[in-house]
Amino acid sequence: MRRTSHIAELSEIIISQKKQGRKIALVPTMGFLHRGHLALIEQAKQTDAFVVVSIFVNPLQFGPNEDLSRYPRDLERDAHLVEEAGVDVLFHPTVEEMYPRPMLTFVEVGELDKMLCGSSRPGHFRGVTTVVSKLFHIVQPDLAFFGQKDYQQYLIIKRMVTDLNLPIEICPVPIVREEDGLALSSRNIFLNSEQRQEALVLSKSLNEAETSIHGGQRSAEKIERQLREKITLESQGVIDYVEVRDADDLSKVTDIKRPVLLALAVKFGTTRLIDNKVVEVEHDV
Amino acid sequence: MRRTSHIAELSEIIISQKKQGRKIALVPTMGFLHRGHLALIEQAKQTDAFVVVSIFVNPLQFGPNEDLSRYPRDLERDAHLVEEAGVDVLFHPTVEEMYPRPMLTFVEVGELDKMLCGSSRPGHFRGVTTVVSKLFHIVQPDLAFFGQKDYQQYLIIKRMVTDLNLPIEICPVPIVREEDGLALSSRNIFLNSEQRQEALVLSKSLNEAETSIHGGQRSAEKIERQLREKITLESQGVIDYVEVRDADDLSKVTDIKRPVLLALAVKFGTTRLIDNKVVEVEHDV
Repeated sequence: MRRTSHIAELSEIIISQKKQGRKIALVPTMGFLHRGHLALIEQAKQTDAFVVVSIFVNPLQFGPNEDLSRYPRDLERDAHLVEEAGVDVLFHPTVEEMYPRPMLTFVEVGELDKMLCGSSRPGHFRGVTTVVSKLFHIVQPDLAFFGQKDYQQYLIIKRMVTDLNLPIEICPVPIVREEDGLALSSRNIFLNSEQRQEALVLSKSLNEAETSIHGGQRSAEKIERQLREKITLESQGVIDYVEVRDADDLSKVTDIKRPVLLALAVKFGTTRLIDNKVVEVEHDV
Repeated sequence: MRRTSHIAELSEIIISQKKQGRKIALVPTMGFLHRGHLALIEQAKQTDAFVVVSIFVNPLQFGPNEDLSRYPRDLERDAHLVEEAGVDVLFHPTVEEMYPRPMLTFVEVGELDKMLCGSSRPGHFRGVTTVVSKLFHIVQPDLAFFGQKDYQQYLIIKRMVTDLNLPIEICPVPIVREEDGLALSSRNIFLNSEQRQEALVLSKSLNEAETSIHGGQRSAEKIERQLREKITLESQGVIDYVEVRDADDLSKVTDIKRPVLLALAVKFGTTRLIDNKVVEVEHDV
């Protein structure tokens, strides 16, 4: 595996692979890798593409009061993991390399970036779409892999790619969970053991809501209430949002008739966790 | 020369050229071509690249009260001109092809897009940078050619490319003028003969201002006043702006010490014309 923190060096590697007719797959990450990231890499490997993993904790997507400085980092451990996973290149630029001068240019996906995580983290998705644009231009991938844990991010990136005619296929990868159901996240490390236990309410409430929908419940409002009540009753988590949205465009849903996204963000102590589930419904005739 | 209005067809052509190791040059235009555009094409041809000319009157960069519907168009004449000029592909997509669904994604270059033409045409440069991003992703050029008549646009595109790591060289091409000095513009067709005559004051005032600077005048304010007075005295043109700005970053200038942009926008009847001149100064020791 090759490692570089330099854009120019990476570009040379990419160009030479492209010349050989090789497809390029990108797995963009913020590092501190877990099995969720490894699932992205595994899917990328299955395409037979030349696999580039980027590790970059992007300051642009953190708000002023967010956890940029304490976001967990462990580059050597990450490098070891991606090498073992059979990645071709690890790209780990510095902030200086990615932002050598003040940024004037931003890429924004309107509407989709205002709701859910966008309303509690203003500017977050603008930071994501801008850095992902940069990575797309640097790596020139044919395929890029995004985890469905950040479902809204996945939809936003997909829309950006469509709207701006980027010649890239965006591949979603299902959420990877611990055996007890907790969705993997680099931020889980911040949970103490009590919070870790309480956080199980997220996946449990999503599962119960799915059962309700499959059992015939079609009221989005009732599903939202069910989720809220479970979380509030069974944990001390502070709800940021709990929403039932259209799974394709995140529009508000009243009656559940098409696939919906059950999405939630809950704070345990100072740690904000997100989780979600896409629930398909059979069409009522 | 090949002609297509379809993105997919163009992409195939581009991919096959790239496979043969050919560089791609893009000349993006809004059509109704004049010798200014032909100068862009000529420079593109000199690079030995495969030359793509796009013609697209981009609704996104016109304000609600601007001249989108009456912007001059003549595709057959244009096609003939570019074929004669030795262009390899003419890409003339429809609005439907470029914007098949409502756009949610926009590319913006902050600060640079608020001043000069940006302040009198809010949203204009956002429309330009967004469509140029799309064209860059569709055509995947190695080089792209922009006329210096739209100097602010050229700087904004250059900044966008740098900020977003687009692997494209932005090549500026000097303003082409009529023999009497009028800068070529597709909008000149709207001038009646009296306005056409009065519009000469633009290039004349720029030349006089350059002479003043070369003669030792270093006060940006005095140069601006000189420009304004000449235009006001010698024409019925209504000044939109007259400014002396830093030629690299468009920042405000008090004392002229480095290359400056003399930039102006003036309305003759309902036709708004722009013109500019970059003036170098010798360093005072």
